[in-house]
Amino acid sequence: MISRDLLLYNSMTRTKELFRPLHPGRVGMYVCGPTVYGDGHLGHARPAITFDVLYRYLTHLGYKVRYVRNITDVGHLEHDADDGEDKIAKKARLEQLEPMEVVQHYLLRYHRAMDALGVLPPSIEPHASGHIIEQIEYIKKILDAGYAYVSDGSVYFDVPRYNADHGYGRLSGRNIDELLSATRALDGQSEKRNPADFALWKKAAPEHIMHWPSPWSEGFPGWHLECSVMSEKYLGEHFDIHGGGMDLKFPHHECEIAQSVAHNGSEAVHYWMHNNMITIGGQKMGKSLGNFITLDQFFTGTHPLLTRPYAPMVIRFFILQAHYRGTVDFSDEALQGAETALRRLTDGWRRIAHLKPSATSDIDVADLERRCYEALDDDLNTPTVIATLFDACRVVNQVNDGTARATAADIEALEALFRTFAFDILGLRLEADGSAAGGVDLAPYEGAVELLLEMRREAKAAKDWARCDMIRDRLGALGFAVKDTRDGGTEWSLK
Amino acid sequence: MISRDLLLYNSMTRTKELFRPLHPGRVGMYVCGPTVYGDGHLGHARPAITFDVLYRYLTHLGYKVRYVRNITDVGHLEHDADDGEDKIAKKARLEQLEPMEVVQHYLLRYHRAMDALGVLPPSIEPHASGHIIEQIEYIKKILDAGYAYVSDGSVYFDVPRYNADHGYGRLSGRNIDELLSATRALDGQSEKRNPADFALWKKAAPEHIMHWPSPWSEGFPGWHLECSVMSEKYLGEHFDIHGGGMDLKFPHHECEIAQSVAHNGSEAVHYWMHNNMITIGGQKMGKSLGNFITLDQFFTGTHPLLTRPYAPMVIRFFILQAHYRGTVDFSDEALQGAETALRRLTDGWRRIAHLKPSATSDIDVADLERRCYEALDDDLNTPTVIATLFDACRVVNQVNDGTARATAADIEALEALFRTFAFDILGLRLEADGSAAGGVDLAPYEGAVELLLEMRREAKAAKDWARCDMIRDRLGALGFAVKDTRDGGTEWSLK
Repeated sequence: MISRDLLLYNSMTRTKELFRPLHPGRVGMYVCGPTVYGDGHLGHARPAITFDVLYRYLTHLGYKVRYVRNITDVGHLEHDADDGEDKIAKKARLEQLEPMEVVQHYLLRYHRAMDALGVLPPSIEPHASGHIIEQIEYIKKILDAGYAYVSDGSVYFDVPRYNADHGYGRLSGRNIDELLSATRALDGQSEKRNPADFALWKKAAPEHIMHWPSPWSEGFPGWHLECSVMSEKYLGEHFDIHGGGMDLKFPHHECEIAQSVAHNGSEAVHYWMHNNMITIGGQKMGKSLGNFITLDQFFTGTHPLLTRPYAPMVIRFFILQAHYRGTVDFSDEALQGAETALRRLTDGWRRIAHLKPSATSDIDVADLERRCYEALDDDLNTPTVIATLFDACRVVNQVNDGTARATAADIEALEALFRTFAFDILGLRLEADGSAAGGVDLAPYEGAVELLLEMRREAKAAKDWARCDMIRDRLGALGFAVKDTRDGGTEWSLK
Repeated sequence: MISRDLLLYNSMTRTKELFRPLHPGRVGMYVCGPTVYGDGHLGHARPAITFDVLYRYLTHLGYKVRYVRNITDVGHLEHDADDGEDKIAKKARLEQLEPMEVVQHYLLRYHRAMDALGVLPPSIEPHASGHIIEQIEYIKKILDAGYAYVSDGSVYFDVPRYNADHGYGRLSGRNIDELLSATRALDGQSEKRNPADFALWKKAAPEHIMHWPSPWSEGFPGWHLECSVMSEKYLGEHFDIHGGGMDLKFPHHECEIAQSVAHNGSEAVHYWMHNNMITIGGQKMGKSLGNFITLDQFFTGTHPLLTRPYAPMVIRFFILQAHYRGTVDFSDEALQGAETALRRLTDGWRRIAHLKPSATSDIDVADLERRCYEALDDDLNTPTVIATLFDACRVVNQVNDGTARATAADIEALEALFRTFAFDILGLRLEADGSAAGGVDLAPYEGAVELLLEMRREAKAAKDWARCDMIRDRLGALGFAVKDTRDGGTEWSLK
């Protein structure tokens, strides 16, 4: 275990708090995952990447982390008003597919996108449809506790009753009295006693194709329920961290809290964490605004707002350049900037392997490391970690240019700094990290490029300028950038 | 739709039958998937690859295939005697992990191995643990039909009763009377009336950590049940094809048949298909024999019986070199042979792009195509398809050597032949198929190698033998094989 004072911003208390796990050495963490009825977009990427970094950092510190991220494959109501219809079932009917075939299609695409973004798989990825029994049992207990009522085969959570006993809306800071006395009156047909009540179980309409038997009706669970049920099943009645996007605070997380308290008598979550939202060109992302860009469209550049494809690592890097509690605005120009910055980082990393050690040293790698840790300990300040890594790049360049000296131990420490913070914790993959890329061993190919550069140096030494230029031009045409270094060597990279 | 007469060997009738789908243009196919409590091995790879080729071929013919392959994540009893304990739960207790964390770990590894082997994901991948309600409902109906009985909180299928009405054992050809009068008497403690009876629901022992409420006990479903239940849920009461390894015929598939007939009154499956087994060095694979090699061990070469790693495509190719109903014997030498053969195929494919068209033609690509189709139509005779592709390689070499002529249309047809049969249907990935490898664009690197060979040809023309040999030797040291062609060109490949 690495002992550090990690501060995390708790959305419930609205302060940074020292992180102390419930069970020494272990962390239980639950993050709301995707509804798999469409392609992944930035709204999926940001929480996944944010809590991936937290998962990686806690693991780095030596905690045994059980990270649960759910898959919503059923019962996600279109609107919280609960009059919507199951989104997946709707899509499935439109496409004349079995709902689970739609789920499989989008789940595979989600997993591929997450892999590409360097997001580690969670320890458990429970599906809502796989926990219907547990949800039914959970509802029974809430009914027994008096915080829910049955209405025409459906079960609703009684928000006014719960609010009177425990207070509802603390996480989101909503004015609950306003909410409860909402002017929008329920028409006579509504099954709900109060508009703020939410469904725990919905009776399925005859044309509804996803449903299960229950004591109340052939139906399906309400969307908010799965997270209370599955977090308790896999992490226990009390657990450390619950994460998600800020848009989930209300009503989803508020409903989760109410369900857990009604079920267990006390709140389940010790630290609530929320990442902020993403905008595109300053606007909220939305299908009607024409700025809804899927992850695959970023990766392939196939959207009118994009001039070209962006590597998944550029997306990750761009997201990490902002603190998770700040907004992030995506634009084609901003991504180009991130791409350039990421290349500078990659160049710095690549250069470390070629540094020549000195007997003495002018550089302070321990200070760089300290700054990285302090940034992470300050509520996961990834932009500061990245800035520190750029400082490390400057140090590398100074040593490379001969304006600073580094011992062999320093050079090793610089390499370790990148490995720990850029790779292990920020989860970046820098092209030249020495590992085989996607199963292809690049080593022989890189050797061929090196051989060409060697032949160019020989041509230069022999003053055969035609050959010298030819090799450089041809490599340039192939997409390689070739740069002569002060010490008479040559560096290359892919443009 | 491509209209062809596809013959498939039906294990039930023990004859090759003309395949006719139940619903025109659509195929429903169910294949028994892995129990995810350990790493994938050859016993997982063979059915996955066999039915992947069937899935690919049916899709190629224009069928809309719904391919269901299940994940057993609960209730897999150690022995059919039903006195075993849940394998996953056992492993989880030993490792002090949550069972679903074990499942997630091995499921991810299974998916990665399947991806590496070029096995397409199925249309639906249902988990047994996600279908407990459906299994309970199914049991209720079998109880109502009189083919099961409750015993101390567990439910058993009544094999003698079923056998009297419908006959049990037809698929496996077991002598059921012998089975029913087995001398191995049940001790007084057994809950079963007959040793041949099998569990539909098992009451969980107190220390058992995976269990769900049911009308009979807190417990878990018997292993055989999930396949009957999930195939019916996603494919209907009657569906086209059920596949699996031959070792599953008895008791697993026999139990599935009994369950379906007891539940629906008629058999569900129209074509039963079984791949044969795998041996290693002539022996059955088994942990106690020290010849149990996981897929990862093949890919990394980390097993005493292997002299080096084998690419996943070599494993796939080796499996497809045998007909699925024949046994396959793995050995280090045999894999080396497969590797060499696959390289020859790759070389042939690669060469097509460099063929020079003639005005006239001596070759007959249509005949090669016809032979490939006929082989597939003959119960998926993949070895004959591979042999035909080697004939195609010979034709390519003849055209390359100038001993045969091919028109531009012929060359295009040769390319299409490889794309259709080697890539799309056999699912092979040949290194030089032009696509980016694992996200890395090799094109600039390949250009660098080509540039070196061009410089070598210039050196040769200038009779600069030293330079000429140097380039060849250095490329050889890097791992490239360089070969001069008759027309004065050069070919290269990775050794």
